[in-house]
Amino acid sequence: MSGPAAPVQAAPPRPVRFGILGCADIARKVSRALLMLPPGAATVAAVGSRSEDKARRFIAETGLPAARPHGSYESLLGDADVEAVYLPLPTSLHVPWATAAAARGKHLLLEKPTALCAADLDAILAACDASGVQFMDTTMWIHNPRTAKMRDIVADKDAFGDIRVIHSMCGFQASEYFLQNDIRVKPDLDALGVLGDVGWYSIRSILWAVEYELPETVIAHRHPVKNQAGVILACGATLYWADGKTATFNCSFLTNLAFDVTVYGTHGTLHVTDLVIPYEEKYAEFSVASKSNFVKPTIGWDPLPTKHVVTTDLPQEALMVQEFSRLVQNIRDAGGRPEGKWPAITRKTQVVLDAVKASIDKGSEPVEVAS
Amino acid sequence: MSGPAAPVQAAPPRPVRFGILGCADIARKVSRALLMLPPGAATVAAVGSRSEDKARRFIAETGLPAARPHGSYESLLGDADVEAVYLPLPTSLHVPWATAAAARGKHLLLEKPTALCAADLDAILAACDASGVQFMDTTMWIHNPRTAKMRDIVADKDAFGDIRVIHSMCGFQASEYFLQNDIRVKPDLDALGVLGDVGWYSIRSILWAVEYELPETVIAHRHPVKNQAGVILACGATLYWADGKTATFNCSFLTNLAFDVTVYGTHGTLHVTDLVIPYEEKYAEFSVASKSNFVKPTIGWDPLPTKHVVTTDLPQEALMVQEFSRLVQNIRDAGGRPEGKWPAITRKTQVVLDAVKASIDKGSEPVEVAS
Repeated sequence: MSGPAAPVQAAPPRPVRFGILGCADIARKVSRALLMLPPGAATVAAVGSRSEDKARRFIAETGLPAARPHGSYESLLGDADVEAVYLPLPTSLHVPWATAAAARGKHLLLEKPTALCAADLDAILAACDASGVQFMDTTMWIHNPRTAKMRDIVADKDAFGDIRVIHSMCGFQASEYFLQNDIRVKPDLDALGVLGDVGWYSIRSILWAVEYELPETVIAHRHPVKNQAGVILACGATLYWADGKTATFNCSFLTNLAFDVTVYGTHGTLHVTDLVIPYEEKYAEFSVASKSNFVKPTIGWDPLPTKHVVTTDLPQEALMVQEFSRLVQNIRDAGGRPEGKWPAITRKTQVVLDAVKASIDKGSEPVEVAS
Repeated sequence: MSGPAAPVQAAPPRPVRFGILGCADIARKVSRALLMLPPGAATVAAVGSRSEDKARRFIAETGLPAARPHGSYESLLGDADVEAVYLPLPTSLHVPWATAAAARGKHLLLEKPTALCAADLDAILAACDASGVQFMDTTMWIHNPRTAKMRDIVADKDAFGDIRVIHSMCGFQASEYFLQNDIRVKPDLDALGVLGDVGWYSIRSILWAVEYELPETVIAHRHPVKNQAGVILACGATLYWADGKTATFNCSFLTNLAFDVTVYGTHGTLHVTDLVIPYEEKYAEFSVASKSNFVKPTIGWDPLPTKHVVTTDLPQEALMVQEFSRLVQNIRDAGGRPEGKWPAITRKTQVVLDAVKASIDKGSEPVEVAS
């Protein structure tokens, strides 16, 4: 049978060889994402844990037969075959292991919260800079095509106008087991508690909405809920910008699941209620109202808000590792420089988070946001 | 032609005879609502304005041929045929005219904001009490059947749990004409500005969500926007309850139309985005999530939130005047007493509004809520 000749295909690029440093639950989701990528993007070369057995079990359970198990983090970092490290360790371990990874020339995909404070993050970013490796945090929803679509709308000065108010609430109802045992409630592991966990997303979503313009001042809401060890379980804050914009957010381990962001502009309004983890994996929606008016005599709206739907073949976490891999390949294979926008938005998130934490620690005094 | 005999119908009750005191725009909406009621509920007996011409024009334009025009407010109050007064005058005129109406034995349907402060409202409520007349404010959405449906859900301890966080934003983009000329930007007419206008709804919605439990403390957000005369055009506040619940709200004349309330409970979440004026007149929806969990490994939600739809034959403003008329008929025809829940929730709204205003005036100092 004759037919059209198959087109000549360029050889796929050489995949980025990942090492997974720590077998946290979230590493299963990222491993799954890595396995979803088209050929040539990435492969998991190694998994490092505090015991080789645990690494082996993780490899078996996540379906990564090509991955080499390492019985220590140090051993994984010594693996010359590993080009990039995904690091989901507890936050208090980020500085030593992230700087060690960077010092070994490994590109760094770092779980959020990236550090306990901006000064710690700066040590990590300096190590990445010194080695010329790519840095990216794991804020997955930034990579959802919905986010880019929402950006276009919010940035439309005619349809949306100027942003004046933002509200975000991110939370979930933690189980009793979580509240007793999870690293996110332990002062020696993830001392930022809910603020570093889902609070990270609220802060990032607010910064995202304003194209990463830092607020001048933050004031934490009074009476944050803390556990006996002093780790924050629920809190909130108000953010103030120089031009009068304000944002409020809440984050909580003690309420039903919520990933809300609403952006109020002079001409438009954007609602999204599943920002961080979409209701469905490959389908995401949001709602936009623009130049809304009343039907006279104030008996309805005209025009009505419109629902926007964005579909994606790859879920957001796969798009994240794909983009990270592309940047690594660009450095490795094409002499490119690390993309600076990723560490820049990480740092802004961390700086605002620091200010909220400082305001909480000072009993809701206003705190200036460092630049 | 023979057919089934018509059922014997009870004579409809004698309609409540309304006087409309002032020809504000909003009075057109309320007149339209009165005309929608089934026979026997209410009729517009008279319209009073500062000029008889204006009253005549209003009567013609709103289709109230049975209404008698009055060339002064005093004349309308002297009309013995008027049993109930709907009073949409600027807020600074409420105390003299509302107390005068009550003193004449007229039942009182009073536009919101009901007064410039709780002390003024108390004078009005005392006058109603002294005369044994019914008092109700014109928060229309309280009468939408959607609101009752939402109450059932929010009150469900199993499905919704305990409320922890509430957010409301009510606003609209006022025209240049409005910002120069509307009574709501004039310090001598509606000195509470946006706080008394749509801010009233935000405060009421928050109180509604918590079954009218007053917060202990409110703290206004910094930097409210004011016009040159000092009237508030945009502001916000955080409310604190004794048990750790918090609420934030914003209200604005300077953003796109928004009537958002979101209630976050330990087990459930409720979203409504058109609370005050539904998108469509006879159809209203809201969304509820309950016991939301992740699809493992955090790749979607299960169960998904559910959309609830509530339809109504009569729009909420007609249901409001119908309920008010029913209460008046109960007093007039059945020896009933005025229903106390309406002045009670008005007063709570006003008390919280006072506290927010006081906090704004004190540069965002915390203000205890009077009881």
